[in-house]
Amino acid sequence: MSELIGKTGYVVRNIRRAEPDVIETLGRLGVATVHEAQGRKGLLASHLRPIQQGRAVAGSAVTVLVAPGDNWMFHVAVEQCQPGDLLVVAPSSPCTDGYFGDLLATSLQARGVRGLVIDAGVRDSQTLREMGFAVWSRAINAQGTVKEVLGSVNLPLLCAGQMINAGDVVIADDDGVVVVRRTEARDVAQAALARAELEEQKRLRLANGELGLDIYSMRPRLEAKGLVYVDSLDDLENRL
Amino acid sequence: MSELIGKTGYVVRNIRRAEPDVIETLGRLGVATVHEAQGRKGLLASHLRPIQQGRAVAGSAVTVLVAPGDNWMFHVAVEQCQPGDLLVVAPSSPCTDGYFGDLLATSLQARGVRGLVIDAGVRDSQTLREMGFAVWSRAINAQGTVKEVLGSVNLPLLCAGQMINAGDVVIADDDGVVVVRRTEARDVAQAALARAELEEQKRLRLANGELGLDIYSMRPRLEAKGLVYVDSLDDLENRL
Amino acid sequence: MSELIGKTGYVVRNIRRAEPDVIETLGRLGVATVHEAQGRKGLLASHLRPIQQGRAVAGSAVTVLVAPGDNWMFHVAVEQCQPGDLLVVAPSSPCTDGYFGDLLATSLQARGVRGLVIDAGVRDSQTLREMGFAVWSRAINAQGTVKEVLGSVNLPLLCAGQMINAGDVVIADDDGVVVVRRTEARDVAQAALARAELEEQKRLRLANGELGLDIYSMRPRLEAKGLVYVDSLDDLENRL
Amino acid sequence: MSELIGKTGYVVRNIRRAEPDVIETLGRLGVATVHEAQGRKGLLASHLRPIQQGRAVAGSAVTVLVAPGDNWMFHVAVEQCQPGDLLVVAPSSPCTDGYFGDLLATSLQARGVRGLVIDAGVRDSQTLREMGFAVWSRAINAQGTVKEVLGSVNLPLLCAGQMINAGDVVIADDDGVVVVRRTEARDVAQAALARAELEEQKRLRLANGELGLDIYSMRPRLEAKGLVYVDSLDDLENRL
Amino acid sequence: MSELIGKTGYVVRNIRRAEPDVIETLGRLGVATVHEAQGRKGLLASHLRPIQQGRAVAGSAVTVLVAPGDNWMFHVAVEQCQPGDLLVVAPSSPCTDGYFGDLLATSLQARGVRGLVIDAGVRDSQTLREMGFAVWSRAINAQGTVKEVLGSVNLPLLCAGQMINAGDVVIADDDGVVVVRRTEARDVAQAALARAELEEQKRLRLANGELGLDIYSMRPRLEAKGLVYVDSLDDLENRL
Amino acid sequence: MSELIGKTGYVVRNIRRAEPDVIETLGRLGVATVHEAQGRKGLLASHLRPIQQGRAVAGSAVTVLVAPGDNWMFHVAVEQCQPGDLLVVAPSSPCTDGYFGDLLATSLQARGVRGLVIDAGVRDSQTLREMGFAVWSRAINAQGTVKEVLGSVNLPLLCAGQMINAGDVVIADDDGVVVVRRTEARDVAQAALARAELEEQKRLRLANGELGLDIYSMRPRLEAKGLVYVDSLDDLENRL
Repeated sequence: MSELIGKTGYVVRNIRRAEPDVIETLGRLGVATVHEAQGRKGLLASHLRPIQQGRAVAGSAVTVLVAPGDNWMFHVAVEQCQPGDLLVVAPSSPCTDGYFGDLLATSLQARGVRGLVIDAGVRDSQTLREMGFAVWSRAINAQGTVKEVLGSVNLPLLCAGQMINAGDVVIADDDGVVVVRRTEARDVAQAALARAELEEQKRLRLANGELGLDIYSMRPRLEAKGLVYVDSLDDLENRL
Repeated sequence: MSELIGKTGYVVRNIRRAEPDVIETLGRLGVATVHEAQGRKGLLASHLRPIQQGRAVAGSAVTVLVAPGDNWMFHVAVEQCQPGDLLVVAPSSPCTDGYFGDLLATSLQARGVRGLVIDAGVRDSQTLREMGFAVWSRAINAQGTVKEVLGSVNLPLLCAGQMINAGDVVIADDDGVVVVRRTEARDVAQAALARAELEEQKRLRLANGELGLDIYSMRPRLEAKGLVYVDSLDDLENRL
Repeated sequence: MSELIGKTGYVVRNIRRAEPDVIETLGRLGVATVHEAQGRKGLLASHLRPIQQGRAVAGSAVTVLVAPGDNWMFHVAVEQCQPGDLLVVAPSSPCTDGYFGDLLATSLQARGVRGLVIDAGVRDSQTLREMGFAVWSRAINAQGTVKEVLGSVNLPLLCAGQMINAGDVVIADDDGVVVVRRTEARDVAQAALARAELEEQKRLRLANGELGLDIYSMRPRLEAKGLVYVDSLDDLENRL
Repeated sequence: MSELIGKTGYVVRNIRRAEPDVIETLGRLGVATVHEAQGRKGLLASHLRPIQQGRAVAGSAVTVLVAPGDNWMFHVAVEQCQPGDLLVVAPSSPCTDGYFGDLLATSLQARGVRGLVIDAGVRDSQTLREMGFAVWSRAINAQGTVKEVLGSVNLPLLCAGQMINAGDVVIADDDGVVVVRRTEARDVAQAALARAELEEQKRLRLANGELGLDIYSMRPRLEAKGLVYVDSLDDLENRL
Repeated sequence: MSELIGKTGYVVRNIRRAEPDVIETLGRLGVATVHEAQGRKGLLASHLRPIQQGRAVAGSAVTVLVAPGDNWMFHVAVEQCQPGDLLVVAPSSPCTDGYFGDLLATSLQARGVRGLVIDAGVRDSQTLREMGFAVWSRAINAQGTVKEVLGSVNLPLLCAGQMINAGDVVIADDDGVVVVRRTEARDVAQAALARAELEEQKRLRLANGELGLDIYSMRPRLEAKGLVYVDSLDDLENRL
Repeated sequence: MSELIGKTGYVVRNIRRAEPDVIETLGRLGVATVHEAQGRKGLLASHLRPIQQGRAVAGSAVTVLVAPGDNWMFHVAVEQCQPGDLLVVAPSSPCTDGYFGDLLATSLQARGVRGLVIDAGVRDSQTLREMGFAVWSRAINAQGTVKEVLGSVNLPLLCAGQMINAGDVVIADDDGVVVVRRTEARDVAQAALARAELEEQKRLRLANGELGLDIYSMRPRLEAKGLVYVDSLDDLENRL
């Protein structure tokens, strides 16, 4: 499969997607919890930032490889999208041009697409927020693009340091973006649910003033590692 | 004219400005549209970011060259401003100090100035937002400046990678900042209007679910460039 | 004292704090004013950014040195906090992992802590905003941390380019973060109050359209430095 | 295979390598030529820089995933290396610590390893140069690491934006680092040889003063695109 | 003139150049001295770095505007070059691709061109050094470019924050790159010579152990500004 | 002491220095070894880079606080230097101007100063290398500075993230810069010597082909942490 990364000139029409309830669960639990639940893998580089605040989405990745400064493949990709999809776009070499604006967002919204993750720039950012179309990008930039060079749609892709297959579940919120393999999505969703429940119980205890030191029984291990409590800085200077 | 760039010690009192209706039109259409309409030139570097969200302004540039860490020339510039102006400021060598705060904003607001574009830092950022004074800057930084060294007012200026003449029209919104030459402003405004109308028609069609592939008749050209549709990744691997 | 910087394995239990009215005054006046009032020192590097907008806090620093990618010391630090404190955290080598999330914030909030200043990353950023727990950080990053290596609590610390002692007053708002030595806090608060009053008077005059050139009597000094007013660019080109 | 990326706790003992003559050819032709010859794919991000000048190496990748700030897996990896290998190392989250110094280099050199490509920091840089051990890294940093957390050896890896399989051929010189799939290495070497011969012929013609415009017959296409020659800037201004 | 910046599709055949002796003098005195001698203007941004060490060149600028990721215009520019010229290249939007390699360098060397200043990337860096072709660039990057889109040759250009006219004198050494207007070149060369002679005299006195404090008579002014000498830190703490 | 950081207007004439043999030992062992030997503290931020290659120096710090864009204090500092000193300079707010060139280096060399560590820019870089004057800086930049504002000499200083007292020992080589407190210098030198001897023994064993896995007895601990060896990737996929 790895030899398909970076290939251009192809569109894959049929991709397998995870089940809607799994995707919904992953989106509800959010990036940090899902990332922990799948063993801390799949996190996209933190230079991808949301252009809005307080939105969390999850969807099936439709992957788009674009040439630098060329957004032609977006139009090809729109036709391959279904409701519940999330567009995941990477340029074949680093570029911060504004590939995407309100017209493309209108087209994607008409097809039920939930948002865009792009390792490049977008523009019309205020209009995108007003439309409620969620975007995670590397830059905001009014600099436009051309339509000259082929890329690909629905081939495996490297985006912000992670490999993403079409149909993988991508979750994005204010903390960033994480990818879950389609075949692992149900297991990860269950693990994430379990983790979230556990955290909820801890939250109640912490809110009541209990200390993590006691809840997690950390004191003996801290002592074993040699942690020393002193009464004051003067005390400490006398010891050293 | 180019030999005036970087000169200090001069204030130009009279500058020519574009007509108010032209400026108003450019501000309403926004940075991305105006940038396209004038042939993709005049965009300031994307490290200039708004300190507020959802504001769009356009105005006649009053240009201010300042020494690094020295904001003396702001006070000189205030006197040269008229209602509808926009202050455009660049330091003579890179600097992220906080040149500008709420007192200077109060003074500019009293003269009807619409905002500030500065390739350096500002401070009192929350107060500026509460006052409704729009700012695009390179940094937010509480570090203050001194008043020791002369700069210039209303000479041509390099700001964030673009040359700006006093009286040029500067448009700024959430996507960034673009400059339009005063002498070209009416033509650009007309081209931008035409472009916006065209986009509005396309938006309606896209919102109805029509595809860009069809609206723009892209399919034959994509085929000519060799774009291949396959049914699945397995299909593709068999072909290669 | 300087030889304590960077030491690990110690927790100092008792620290001296500034008086509440002084802390309250400093927080109300804000970072830019306090920074000026104490002679432009104590400003933390501007890569520390608030994750929320429009919040200003001040508190007594509880300092926490953590290992890269290891947030164990947070749990130790919580026990040392009192109402009105502010957690100030730095990693012993540069790291942008997400050290801190909503569970730790719940625990700190239960103890009356006012916020967090951290020269590293945080996660659960939207939940933190919804809880009203104020944070200034270097990054937002879902990447979690481990609990393996000791750091220290309440020793002097280098954070974002400033040395911070436990009990120093730390003020943070949308402009950044500044530290005031505990022993100087009352003097600085008075100087800041005086400065703020002076600024208020100037604000009224500027809002009425008076010029800074006149209020500050700048014209003679500008003339002495050689500032020249010309009527137009053509005038200037003729002179040169 | 993609689900193996990021897994920790495993060492793969047997990997398949490309044939020595193929590796030698790729190393001799260099990164830019190989990158072109395989269709402009496989280039690692340009933040990887050589710590020496004028060295070019190629070798079979032994891949090492390490935890942030933890170089334990290097020792595990040494045992898996053969003469002609190249160590390719990536941290599981971004880190610029100095993972690697002269002791590890001595150990690798004793096993015939040709160099190191690491998306993190190294130290003892001058000693490494004196030893003739070639290194491409993200940073030079005296900050050391610990040995606490497991990673993996010889699993597929994301390094500086590219996926690398153990046994892939990695080529590195002053221009950067490129990976060639093991199974494609012979074909790429042949294509690169052909390209290099072609370039050699062109170099002779260009050195003799022939113009690329003529060698590549560019003039008609430039004219068709509308390129206009004018005699002077004045001419041009008159036309516009 | 400023309206020509950014225009594409034009090649200006005839440009005026400064006299050879002036250019030779400027190159010999170097960037820092020339920059001072012309009043600290004309310095290109410091992200332009030499790919070699210890080379200093000066030449007449042949300016080339290129599209992002497209090096077609280099071939057009070669034909416009004369012995003693220096190619000055900027992309119309930020790009770090490797536009330039050893073939183009061979072609330029055959025409007597002295070097390249480019606000983008180059490749074949080691071969360029071995050829003795001097380069100042923003990046080294094996990523190649295409030949599809027109730019311009010998129009005024913004490069690394400075406007450069064809025929201006560009000086580059290990400290960076500076531009001198063609019409000012003789005056600047004279001023730079005078400055260099003055510096030479000072160097001799400083090498003999005289202090700048005395040579420049700084002591009275330092005292007037309030500089205080104390015998020790203890002394200072007692005073405060 | 901490309240002296950032104070301006003072020069401390007498400082205590470490003994020459201790300084010589620290310089010979180098930054990485010294940093380890003192418990991994005191490392300056890695944005400080040498302008030469293969030089290692150690000396007693003469500390200089300078205003942004103002190098006046260098001349004051020269007079306070003795043979064997190292100038350590930081600007009071971030600045990359070229503060330092060959004239100041001549003056320092005449007094026996061993080099310069500066968290800002330098110029005349090639001449500095030819003179053999060693420099570690944040930038190379021809942009000059003025002489208007007082700083301080020999007060404690924050430089590249570390506090440095006048008289502390500063060691710099190709790996970076580390500070050792004067009062701890003899102990650190001894610990570093012991460490270097131990490393030398290990180097011999590693050069003979022994594995770190065996020398350091790592195998049982790796097994306890759960490290699994598999024969091939296929094996691994079967297990999962």
